[in-house]
Amino acid sequence: MLIEERLKELKDKINDKVPAGINVSNVEFEGPELVIYTDDPKKFADEADLIKVLARDLRKRIVVRPNVLEDPELAAKEIKSVVPDGAGITDMFFDPDTGEVLIEAEKPGVVIGKNGTTLRDITKEIGWTPKVVRTPPIESTTVKQIRQYLRSVKDERKEFLRTIGRRIHRDVTSKDKWVRVTTLGCCREVGRAAFLLSTPESKILIDCGEKPGSTEGVPYLYVPEIYPLNTLDAVVLTHAHLDHCALVPLLYRYGFEGPVYSTPATRDLAVMLQLDYLEVVSNEANQAPYTSKEVQEYLKKSIVLNYGSVTDIAPDIKLTYHNAGHILGSAIAHFHVGDGLYNIAFSGDFNYGKTRLFGPATSQFPRLETIFVESTYGGANDIQPSKKDAEEKLYEAVNTTIKRGGKVIIPAFAVGRSQEVMLTLEEGMRLDKIPKVKVYLDGMIKEATAIHTTYPEYLNPELRKQIFQDGMNPFLSDCFVQVDSPAIRENVIGGEPSIIITTSGMLSGGPVMEYLNGLAADEKNMLIFVGYQADGTMGRRIQKGWKEIPMGRRGSIVINLEIQTIDGFSGHSDRNQLMRYINHLNPRPEKVFTIHGDEKSAIDLASSIYKRFRIETHAPRNLETYRMI
Amino acid sequence: MLIEERLKELKDKINDKVPAGINVSNVEFEGPELVIYTDDPKKFADEADLIKVLARDLRKRIVVRPNVLEDPELAAKEIKSVVPDGAGITDMFFDPDTGEVLIEAEKPGVVIGKNGTTLRDITKEIGWTPKVVRTPPIESTTVKQIRQYLRSVKDERKEFLRTIGRRIHRDVTSKDKWVRVTTLGCCREVGRAAFLLSTPESKILIDCGEKPGSTEGVPYLYVPEIYPLNTLDAVVLTHAHLDHCALVPLLYRYGFEGPVYSTPATRDLAVMLQLDYLEVVSNEANQAPYTSKEVQEYLKKSIVLNYGSVTDIAPDIKLTYHNAGHILGSAIAHFHVGDGLYNIAFSGDFNYGKTRLFGPATSQFPRLETIFVESTYGGANDIQPSKKDAEEKLYEAVNTTIKRGGKVIIPAFAVGRSQEVMLTLEEGMRLDKIPKVKVYLDGMIKEATAIHTTYPEYLNPELRKQIFQDGMNPFLSDCFVQVDSPAIRENVIGGEPSIIITTSGMLSGGPVMEYLNGLAADEKNMLIFVGYQADGTMGRRIQKGWKEIPMGRRGSIVINLEIQTIDGFSGHSDRNQLMRYINHLNPRPEKVFTIHGDEKSAIDLASSIYKRFRIETHAPRNLETYRMI
Ligand SMILES: [Zn+2]
Ligand SMILES: [Zn+2]
Ligand SMILES: [Zn+2]
Ligand SMILES: [Zn+2]
Ligand SMILES: [Zn+2]
Repeated sequence: MLIEERLKELKDKINDKVPAGINVSNVEFEGPELVIYTDDPKKFADEADLIKVLARDLRKRIVVRPNVLEDPELAAKEIKSVVPDGAGITDMFFDPDTGEVLIEAEKPGVVIGKNGTTLRDITKEIGWTPKVVRTPPIESTTVKQIRQYLRSVKDERKEFLRTIGRRIHRDVTSKDKWVRVTTLGCCREVGRAAFLLSTPESKILIDCGEKPGSTEGVPYLYVPEIYPLNTLDAVVLTHAHLDHCALVPLLYRYGFEGPVYSTPATRDLAVMLQLDYLEVVSNEANQAPYTSKEVQEYLKKSIVLNYGSVTDIAPDIKLTYHNAGHILGSAIAHFHVGDGLYNIAFSGDFNYGKTRLFGPATSQFPRLETIFVESTYGGANDIQPSKKDAEEKLYEAVNTTIKRGGKVIIPAFAVGRSQEVMLTLEEGMRLDKIPKVKVYLDGMIKEATAIHTTYPEYLNPELRKQIFQDGMNPFLSDCFVQVDSPAIRENVIGGEPSIIITTSGMLSGGPVMEYLNGLAADEKNMLIFVGYQADGTMGRRIQKGWKEIPMGRRGSIVINLEIQTIDGFSGHSDRNQLMRYINHLNPRPEKVFTIHGDEKSAIDLASSIYKRFRIETHAPRNLETYRMI
Repeated sequence: MLIEERLKELKDKINDKVPAGINVSNVEFEGPELVIYTDDPKKFADEADLIKVLARDLRKRIVVRPNVLEDPELAAKEIKSVVPDGAGITDMFFDPDTGEVLIEAEKPGVVIGKNGTTLRDITKEIGWTPKVVRTPPIESTTVKQIRQYLRSVKDERKEFLRTIGRRIHRDVTSKDKWVRVTTLGCCREVGRAAFLLSTPESKILIDCGEKPGSTEGVPYLYVPEIYPLNTLDAVVLTHAHLDHCALVPLLYRYGFEGPVYSTPATRDLAVMLQLDYLEVVSNEANQAPYTSKEVQEYLKKSIVLNYGSVTDIAPDIKLTYHNAGHILGSAIAHFHVGDGLYNIAFSGDFNYGKTRLFGPATSQFPRLETIFVESTYGGANDIQPSKKDAEEKLYEAVNTTIKRGGKVIIPAFAVGRSQEVMLTLEEGMRLDKIPKVKVYLDGMIKEATAIHTTYPEYLNPELRKQIFQDGMNPFLSDCFVQVDSPAIRENVIGGEPSIIITTSGMLSGGPVMEYLNGLAADEKNMLIFVGYQADGTMGRRIQKGWKEIPMGRRGSIVINLEIQTIDGFSGHSDRNQLMRYINHLNPRPEKVFTIHGDEKSAIDLASSIYKRFRIETHAPRNLETYRMI
């Protein structure tokens, strides 16, 4: 069927269900959504459940948008005139994708008004659908810039979404039915995650990361299964860590033109980390594989989805994200293929334990035949100590170091471990378990923390409450000091005993190298690893006992400081949690693939799952294709 | 390196090794060969081992060709004037690919002359290298037409070989090293054989067959691993059965432009069977997937290799064919990848038992890490009776039927079982084990038999001797009568008790349907299955007990005649032979993949091989990719 005929048919169906007196002037696919244009947005809003009923019956994500959206500047003025001054509006973000205006206010209740009256008044006045959130306690430059940029390309983006929408809803033509997964990276190794999910109709790339500490850092993007890249329907990101998203902009350089799906938090973190990655790479005098132009291209073509929203991303594939508990916005990507044909999930990195930041990963799915799970700690002996023990050990290490007049260096990814350690240290000082020294944050950690407070809905309820409780936001504790210049860094290195949390997490470049350069010779200091160190990284080497780090032209660094590894802070499930997760999976899958772990861990986890649960398992190698059905 | 530089370098090396006084005017890649052009072909020929030494040192297949090849017509005249009349020259075939002239003579010894004197005289006179063979006792129209056609396109072909030669010898550029196999058909099923062998440099398609008795008869040629087809470096055929080669011409329709490798016998049989396939398909009012034009295209781009010749077919892949013992020209294709990187063999269909026609399949390889083996009779219970028992059973069935005044119908592939059964029946009559009735050959059987006698070097020594012994050629026994018109067919059906060997072997069309139409109602007659009947074919259905065959507009055929299945004539290894073959493989491979068998057989064989030999096995599914290294 021609797409125009299909839209006509949908419009007729909608008109049948919509009460008389509500006008439906047009329907259009925009990205994964079906947009209903109307002269009567208010009436639509008043009909309780109408949109829900339409979504259910048409099996589409429905958005209602007024035919004319008022000019954002005028609309902003009108909002300000309707809302009482006491609301403390700090920002408004008009999102043309959704026709929503995001109103950030210090007192969201005042914007909403008694029983929502103020909100209704706004809708009536301006057409845009208002959404009210509490002003993030820490302002993120990244988020601000992303919103600005998206506003500046809104016409281009609208055209893009229309094209993608029509592509998603094209006819299914093949009479063959099969589902395959091709492994393009991250098998029997940690890093360069990239998986191709394909059917006779569609091709979806899941993640596209770099390999830390390796010169073969790129997934196998040149193989014919995926090349040319413009044959891909979509890229789907699980989370923002660079081993999962660093090379997304590269896809646009190589000819990809489609959308990249992620949660909103993942998108913002990914852009921040990609820009940082470019800087780190070029500081190391390596050739950056892409420029910020391609990061913008990615941003322009990103489509964000919240947890739980079932979304058409190809004619025969629906994507739903679920909480993965790993970092902010991290998701398990669940794909429903065909009309009940097959269900396959990619765990991404996930944590089945509860942390200070997040709830545990989802183990319940409507349907599930196959799951790809990470196996970073999949080995039989990869048992992590409890979170509590890890924290005690950290407190002890800090006490020891500070007492002897030393400094503590904690290398960490900007996103994830850093915030977990920050919360631990803040509580330690608050409860007098460790001395109140400064905690310096270098690299993107501060900015990453700001993004956390912009998306409080991804944090667990206790932390969310704490953040918005006046004066209790742990991230705002005055122990935390941002390092944002070489001069400050020098002062930190030469200054009082303190704690330094800094990137990169595996010592593959970044400011941590400066701190080592300044502090490694002194045995009073301590280097504490709190995260996984991949094979081939400098972090892994130092863990193994290297006593000297070559620094190229700058000579080398002698390692005299104390080295400790504190397990238990990981954002990954350990071996026990992985087995428990498989056991709790509901429904129980028919096949489990173990990925994102070194060779031994992946194989060990696969064979243990098979032995314990009699589920078919594989520890695939890179460049293989598995037929699911 | 540019190809011109490489040729220059090769020419210099050759000049270093060639004795003074022998001119090397040019060297050129033509297909897989390195051709040395010279003014002194005679001197080259006189230097014992010179070509062998060059081939070994340069690791290339070397052909020496005079700068000027005399015009074939003139050369033919000169040959006739040099050779004594008594030689009985019946044909000469000038092959511009090789610079050879094939002289067919009734008395080859006379052409060669005492101590080869006559042969040397010929060389001196005409430049072409003479090769003398005994005149085939049965003339094949197919072979004649193929030779004629190749002669007519020799300039085009030369250009093609030059292009392919340069493509084969292009530089290796990738720093990645991997070897993969993608299954495009024939997994957990019998039919539509098609496997993709790929490296970062090269893509080789092994076989491209149809699936008998199925509407989903085509391998998965549309998947991105193989599409577009002009990215393929070569197609490599194991043998001429239609489930392995029927769709090769289709590749040219879909954009393939490269060479198809096979043994010479496979090429000739394949062309014959493809043309027959076109006729059968169009008789059934189906749309033929290609025309005879594409068969010609295949022929024009075919490159033939004999057993044991190690040949570059891609920058990083060498192909060697070995005897498979299955049908005339059938081969195990052995691929040596990279410089000692990996060795992988595809058995094609193979017989590890000796038959009246062929020696057993090769089990010895210089190196071998992985083998794909057929599993037609791979099930635990697929034990075939001995050849001797099968023959006794056939004699008994013939005696019973003839005695009661009936006719015996033996459906068989034109190539393989037919000749085996012919030889059995001829001996039965000669030794008075069965009455001397007529054996009618319908379909392409006679022509296929002629091709057998054209390539005696593929037959086992005993049969080869018998064929060339005057008056003893079993194929020329006057019990065999060719059926080549509907009128004769009617006479056979209405005539005396007799035996009819006819195509198609699985009752999926062809003249066998006419015989059933005329003879199935009479219970005096007998239908004897001597070959494998694939799932979904009419043959399998009748074996299972169907009593009526629908014939479309022509109503249906009632089955009253007696049905017998005589196992043991198969051209395939049975379960015991398969296990013995794996046991005898030298060297022992690291991995075995079982293919070309129904699901149960493939899985059963794989798991038995693993249990008995502790070799890693897989029974792959279609559309999977396995990483070898
Ligand atoms: Zn991660
Ligand atoms: Zn990861
Ligand atoms: Zn497997
Ligand atoms: Zn065969
Ligand atoms: Zn076959």
